[in-house]
Amino acid sequence: MNEISSDLTQNENITFNNKLINAVIANCNEENRANLEGLIEPLHPADLADLFTFLNTEQRSYILGTLKEDRYTEVLAELDDTIIDETVQNLEEKKVARSISEMETDDAINLIESLEPESKKKILDQVNPANRVIFEESLNYPEDTAGRRMQKEFVSMPGFWSVGQAIDYLRKEINLPEDFFELFIVDPLNKPLGSASVSKVLRSQRDTKLSDILEDSPKFVKASMDQEEVALFFEQYSLVSAGVVDDKNRLIGRITADDIVWVLQEEAEEDILRLGGVAESEMNQSIGKATKRRFIWLFLNLLTAILASYVISLFDASIEKMVALAVLMPIVASMGGNAGTQTLTLTVRSLATKELVENNRRKVFIKEIGISILNGFIFAILTGVAALIWFEDLSLSIIVGAAMIINILSAGLFGFLIPYVFNRIKIDPALASSVFVTTITDVFGFLSFLGLASIYLF
Amino acid sequence: MNEISSDLTQNENITFNNKLINAVIANCNEENRANLEGLIEPLHPADLADLFTFLNTEQRSYILGTLKEDRYTEVLAELDDTIIDETVQNLEEKKVARSISEMETDDAINLIESLEPESKKKILDQVNPANRVIFEESLNYPEDTAGRRMQKEFVSMPGFWSVGQAIDYLRKEINLPEDFFELFIVDPLNKPLGSASVSKVLRSQRDTKLSDILEDSPKFVKASMDQEEVALFFEQYSLVSAGVVDDKNRLIGRITADDIVWVLQEEAEEDILRLGGVAESEMNQSIGKATKRRFIWLFLNLLTAILASYVISLFDASIEKMVALAVLMPIVASMGGNAGTQTLTLTVRSLATKELVENNRRKVFIKEIGISILNGFIFAILTGVAALIWFEDLSLSIIVGAAMIINILSAGLFGFLIPYVFNRIKIDPALASSVFVTTITDVFGFLSFLGLASIYLF
Repeated sequence: MNEISSDLTQNENITFNNKLINAVIANCNEENRANLEGLIEPLHPADLADLFTFLNTEQRSYILGTLKEDRYTEVLAELDDTIIDETVQNLEEKKVARSISEMETDDAINLIESLEPESKKKILDQVNPANRVIFEESLNYPEDTAGRRMQKEFVSMPGFWSVGQAIDYLRKEINLPEDFFELFIVDPLNKPLGSASVSKVLRSQRDTKLSDILEDSPKFVKASMDQEEVALFFEQYSLVSAGVVDDKNRLIGRITADDIVWVLQEEAEEDILRLGGVAESEMNQSIGKATKRRFIWLFLNLLTAILASYVISLFDASIEKMVALAVLMPIVASMGGNAGTQTLTLTVRSLATKELVENNRRKVFIKEIGISILNGFIFAILTGVAALIWFEDLSLSIIVGAAMIINILSAGLFGFLIPYVFNRIKIDPALASSVFVTTITDVFGFLSFLGLASIYLF
Repeated sequence: MNEISSDLTQNENITFNNKLINAVIANCNEENRANLEGLIEPLHPADLADLFTFLNTEQRSYILGTLKEDRYTEVLAELDDTIIDETVQNLEEKKVARSISEMETDDAINLIESLEPESKKKILDQVNPANRVIFEESLNYPEDTAGRRMQKEFVSMPGFWSVGQAIDYLRKEINLPEDFFELFIVDPLNKPLGSASVSKVLRSQRDTKLSDILEDSPKFVKASMDQEEVALFFEQYSLVSAGVVDDKNRLIGRITADDIVWVLQEEAEEDILRLGGVAESEMNQSIGKATKRRFIWLFLNLLTAILASYVISLFDASIEKMVALAVLMPIVASMGGNAGTQTLTLTVRSLATKELVENNRRKVFIKEIGISILNGFIFAILTGVAALIWFEDLSLSIIVGAAMIINILSAGLFGFLIPYVFNRIKIDPALASSVFVTTITDVFGFLSFLGLASIYLF
């Protein structure tokens, strides 16, 4: 029983186990090889691969060198994307090439596509021609499509076979994937007619025809389908596995839910980081590289901030006459910025999950405007009252309230329109929207408040 | 072949098919019942449930009333969380109660937990006692745990059985889940000893012992485990299904990857929306409710904006002497805000994915500070030069540069520390961090720039 309870908590143990990590680092040399092997032997390949992110390249390649070929392949298949290239560069190309030929195609492709062009070429040159053709077929599909994510190993058979024939075939045939969840039923041209779940096959009498126990859910995606669409397809139909067909509708692979779990983590990560102005996960990147990536975003922000400052400078005479304007103006801009971010976030997310579509865009838009008007008026009153108490100037407080309404309304308007339009012209709305929205709310905030003030106060 | 290609694109068709939705709405009455049935008959239950989000409560209950009991149950199980309560309120309680007793437990629990307390009681009162006990056992586990997400239907047997015995049992036994991916091997006390994948069973000879074909990956989670942890566990070990054990280590259910896909979407959604200042998806909420939710966030922001304004007001004399200060101060605050959001986003995300843990917090922190110092100096120079060109005042440009360094550095510092500390004291770092970070960068931005200016310029 102990074995299982240790399994249960294994996930926690690895990532938090400082002691283990330090012990591995201390024993990472030929002298202490026996100790090292004792430490890493009980680890699941995925956990050992995780531990690698805490080691340097030499330590990684030393440990890989101590592993048997099977385990070497398993660990390589589980490596974190961000350390694949530098790790592989330090390994013997021939061995890596042999190793990826042993992997399931989705793992192999994932490793290959994480390599820099140079190491990629070196490794692919060492792969035997038959396997290279297989890899290149997958790599020919655009990045982040079903064709890249699929495993080419699947089980298919004709529908007129009986359950008994299927079981006999599966018991005899050696060249089968390690794990599968359905038998694909294909016609002689390899076009799918449906699929039978393995548990259904297991429960049916030997003389049942496979064509009589087909699933009724849709279970096939096109190889050219974007992985995010594939994930939504899996979510929609609660799938655990689906076949992949090429543009001639021939079955060429399958995708399983464990790949989808990975896709979802990756896509959610991308959206969150892009909304926050970070291009991609930087956990294993150097300071220089990370600085450069964030610099671009901040630089864009500097340009827009200068634009906002320019707007302020147009009203410097008014500010000179009444410093309270300078004191209050950031409130208007900041409230607009936050209201805009709310609408923007919701719009980006509902575009990604396909909750916002053609049929309801009008309804959603009207609702956003409604919310903006309501909150605009509420905060106009709140800010107006606060300004009145603070500066005891009724005109000023009316102007700050009016500017608040204008700015929160424009925040809702552009918080919706900007990501919506980006999405229509096929630019990822998570990527660029927030710079545009905050620029607009800054500029509108300063312009409306200072503009109204200079018209009505002086 | 046509059938399959229509299946392939079904996902797209439903959500974008305005025509279908309008036709359904137009035919939603007794007169046109035959038309209506013709329209919805070909739809997958998940698609029909999606279509429901475009209808009103009366239309939904009318359509549900036209469905046969099986399909009624399937559609109910697929309803979007946000419309469950209002839809169920309009249905006959007895029928709903019978329907959820027919569902797999995870679907039933999902429906029940989406009901308001009142409708929940009404429905549960109508469920027969045996099923009510089953539901209540699941509902006793805290929200968002494996115990809530699990299906109680699974297949288990002793390890000394042969593959032949297992297959014979599966063929005879009627009370089995519709689909399963492994046979759990348990001891006489129902404690799990391992699991055999269904495909492995199918491939093994009849006389093979089940205990000889057990999986070697860890495959069990505790019922009390948080669903986000369960998702990471699935991701880590590329699982498609896992057993769930209670605190006495007895097998009580299983979780499959399709549930995890759903959990991941939900958790990513939560993080993204919380970071953007929106409490939860509002797609199907009324304007009033959505306004109220966003109001709270904006109100918090108003208080912090007033704090920032107060800081500015401390320096009104300096601003009066030199309006350029009012023009430049938003640049410093805005750059700090953006740099802070970058660090914050990365920290929140790496805490969620367990990439940031005890062992590397020091390394990550030092890196963040490094990036902040680098970008701080770069933007100090850029802004300083821009200010020099604009205002032709060297002292002013040095001060704006110095303020930039201070503010970007404090942005990095607090962008890391605030979510990190929230996480340590068990508050969701996505929830409250961004208000704190932007407040700090605003206050520090104005304070450093105006403070330095009033000390050194006058």
